[in-house]
Amino acid sequence: MTTAPVRTDLYAQVQHFYAHQMHALDGGRFEEYAATFTPDGSFQHSPGAQPAVGRAGIVHELVEFHKRFDGDPVQRRHWFNHIALEPQADGSLRSTVYALVVTVRPGGKPEIAPSCVVHDVLEVDGEGVLLRSRLVTHDQMF
Amino acid sequence: MTTAPVRTDLYAQVQHFYAHQMHALDGGRFEEYAATFTPDGSFQHSPGAQPAVGRAGIVHELVEFHKRFDGDPVQRRHWFNHIALEPQADGSLRSTVYALVVTVRPGGKPEIAPSCVVHDVLEVDGEGVLLRSRLVTHDQMF
Amino acid sequence: MTTAPVRTDLYAQVQHFYAHQMHALDGGRFEEYAATFTPDGSFQHSPGAQPAVGRAGIVHELVEFHKRFDGDPVQRRHWFNHIALEPQADGSLRSTVYALVVTVRPGGKPEIAPSCVVHDVLEVDGEGVLLRSRLVTHDQMF
Repeated sequence: MTTAPVRTDLYAQVQHFYAHQMHALDGGRFEEYAATFTPDGSFQHSPGAQPAVGRAGIVHELVEFHKRFDGDPVQRRHWFNHIALEPQADGSLRSTVYALVVTVRPGGKPEIAPSCVVHDVLEVDGEGVLLRSRLVTHDQMF
Repeated sequence: MTTAPVRTDLYAQVQHFYAHQMHALDGGRFEEYAATFTPDGSFQHSPGAQPAVGRAGIVHELVEFHKRFDGDPVQRRHWFNHIALEPQADGSLRSTVYALVVTVRPGGKPEIAPSCVVHDVLEVDGEGVLLRSRLVTHDQMF
Repeated sequence: MTTAPVRTDLYAQVQHFYAHQMHALDGGRFEEYAATFTPDGSFQHSPGAQPAVGRAGIVHELVEFHKRFDGDPVQRRHWFNHIALEPQADGSLRSTVYALVVTVRPGGKPEIAPSCVVHDVLEVDGEGVLLRSRLVTHDQMF
């Protein structure tokens, strides 16, 4: 197989970027999550949803989405696996990643659903990694 | 602990190899999956099965195996964790990896089973990574 | 997001360290697991427990803990995800990691619980990685 010729240091950098990013999301630090996008970045967390655009828009979308958990003490954890990178002609990186959402309530057992695929476009420069766009598809909808 | 002295760039390279490989398998691109093996590579997906040998043999085995899903709209995802590499005297790498199979059907919740261990022997050169052999053991059978 | 400025080769090294360490734990090789700690390292596997200190103490704690599985043929696998590293002023690394425990019994399906967060302090030098301390928190207890 011709694995995409991505530098291995870049691969580790993207893994680490995702680790911090998802800790921020699952920790409810939405501003920190939004700051992982480019200023004009877009975030579409499910195929039917309108994408949120820009950091303020992404924070707003996350606040709205999480209102469903008001009064519901829930800890969610987004797990990622098999990050596959493909360099694009414009210097960006296409990143396709498996994801499972782990949801825990006090005293309960983790519910592990849904199974998703994350479709990202990343911009990487000397400063670090930023997300230009994220679209999440759901395996249950096919 | 004396971690096996594997170069860290090689570790990221193997992770990335697995990411592309399992996207190919779960995407039903069996020729692409088979091409991740050496021409004489062997693939034994469960301990009782006869190993499939060679790329054509591996494609054949996968086509046969997946007939059980004919008419059953199923999306499977093979998750990997804790890739442990050990260099072998002949220059190959032994790779031992945890695996969970995530199975999703329309409108359903993911079923996460079985739990497996993947036992690979990898060949790495300037061209990339190839699998010389893969044997999958199942945690439920012990 | 300002990802913590951790060298990418160090990131892969820590991933690989965890892979070998958890293979040792899940394989019942408790001395090998304990040897991944510094000589005065501490290991607290749940918030209410007293931390075990020193390698002999850690082995003792693991032997005691696993007595609950006497006569119960169980295979456990500790999965890790999203390793987030933060360099500390004293040269150590803080590492925060998602964890899920997969438990399998003969003929059964994996039970995946609990969902945890692993809080490690790592010491890294030319010789490799050692754990100075590990505290595991449980998502179900909040």
